[in-house]
Amino acid sequence: MTVDWIALDWAADRQRVWAMQGGDVVSETAHEGGLTVTPQGLISLISYWLSDKPLPIIACGLLGPVSGTIPCAPLADGAWSMDLGDPRVHLHVIPGLKQKTPVDMMQGDETRVAGFLALNKDWDGVLCLVGSETRWVHVSAGEVVSFQTFMTGAVLGALAAQTGLHQWLNSPDLEVAAFDAALSDAMAKPERVLARLYSIHAEGVLDGLSQGQARGRILGGLIGAELAAARPFWLGQQLAVIGQGAMAQAYVDALAAQGAPATLADEPRITRQGLQVAWRALST
Amino acid sequence: MTVDWIALDWAADRQRVWAMQGGDVVSETAHEGGLTVTPQGLISLISYWLSDKPLPIIACGLLGPVSGTIPCAPLADGAWSMDLGDPRVHLHVIPGLKQKTPVDMMQGDETRVAGFLALNKDWDGVLCLVGSETRWVHVSAGEVVSFQTFMTGAVLGALAAQTGLHQWLNSPDLEVAAFDAALSDAMAKPERVLARLYSIHAEGVLDGLSQGQARGRILGGLIGAELAAARPFWLGQQLAVIGQGAMAQAYVDALAAQGAPATLADEPRITRQGLQVAWRALST
Repeated sequence: MTVDWIALDWAADRQRVWAMQGGDVVSETAHEGGLTVTPQGLISLISYWLSDKPLPIIACGLLGPVSGTIPCAPLADGAWSMDLGDPRVHLHVIPGLKQKTPVDMMQGDETRVAGFLALNKDWDGVLCLVGSETRWVHVSAGEVVSFQTFMTGAVLGALAAQTGLHQWLNSPDLEVAAFDAALSDAMAKPERVLARLYSIHAEGVLDGLSQGQARGRILGGLIGAELAAARPFWLGQQLAVIGQGAMAQAYVDALAAQGAPATLADEPRITRQGLQVAWRALST
Repeated sequence: MTVDWIALDWAADRQRVWAMQGGDVVSETAHEGGLTVTPQGLISLISYWLSDKPLPIIACGLLGPVSGTIPCAPLADGAWSMDLGDPRVHLHVIPGLKQKTPVDMMQGDETRVAGFLALNKDWDGVLCLVGSETRWVHVSAGEVVSFQTFMTGAVLGALAAQTGLHQWLNSPDLEVAAFDAALSDAMAKPERVLARLYSIHAEGVLDGLSQGQARGRILGGLIGAELAAARPFWLGQQLAVIGQGAMAQAYVDALAAQGAPATLADEPRITRQGLQVAWRALST
């Protein structure tokens, strides 16, 4: 199989590599877990595809600088060529975007915004990008106008790994009624988010909440607190959620419960599409 | 050295053992980290002191049931005798307290409340107990009237262990001005707590916040969100913070900034005092 280029997404909690032939995926590999960014680590992720002929890599995520300042197009700065000191590799990194007030940044989501816009021409509205952070990105006339990042996913992961709540989070069960009730309670009193977490634990111990009920309440409580704070982003806007799995669906459901319908876009496809936009710009 | 009894505090993140002669501490050992509660684990913590003569142990924390329902005196149910199947040990466990609405519980703090009241006769007001959880306990006429638990400490620990924020939390530096500003911002907009955490990270990366500034903001942001939600507990009340180290001092400072002065009581001393109250009740 010939491979023209490598699409690489280097996030805080996982790295994904697509070996590409034009717009087609030849193969895909994923590494779960946080890897420190090093040239050796990068080379090892793609070593299978290396040969004498220099291989272009288009990467987004933690590898690069955060150089673009909004408002700007998501790929305004193109891709930066970075020298890895290895003649088998031509690395091009898509820089992240920053916002001055309130201070915020993204490293990877700019590529997903570009991918989404490539598939949805002239789309205006707000994208909710669900990952280890959740990022609400207001897009207008092809530019990122403003955005806000919440640590919801990272906090949930940390709670599951490190606290007594792990016993309620180690099953995929999620009871919808418990999620809905917690969501609506959290939106009404978002400041109680840290108290509510312990109350769920106490109800689990004392009243025998099921795992699905407890997990539904924890997710509903965290996402509800976030929706309360992100209201200016989703209220009265055209909305799309970019994500995968239960968390992305939870955001879609939570928004629907506020009368704010959102389409769901599959995150890996959108990421690959964004990297492809950058690849095409380099090749022409 | 003769030892009359053992005082034991078994918390989620540490276990402490005091070998006691009446009211005097003969020796003290501490184990940091979460241990699963087992008879073997308990025996191993106190094995040095075991002999043919049965040794009384007075314990609080995760070992026992949660049997008392408030309003009640902190040690209303006394201490439960539990059989470890080892003739060298007489184990007495102080049961935890629960609250029906909103559902909440404590396992260990009831003993600290008793210890504080033993040292401060006829004290009425609100105790803020700072640990892996923070618990606000309203005490009146010797009884626990109501309480509320926040997962602030556990969330902070989980963020430090598991997320990108660890780089700002692995130093003891804390800039007071940054703490104060974040506290006041968080109290005004507590619902933004999960967004603010990422914003601090972005400012650290983009604007070169110092570790002391970033840590000050993270603590100020979390404690501010908690104070906003716990306002009914501390507003216009006589206050005491029971804790240790920088976190306890941060609560005292945060309350002082709201015009709510609190005395600071040293947690290990208060815990030991509470266990001693239970020991005396058993011995008479």
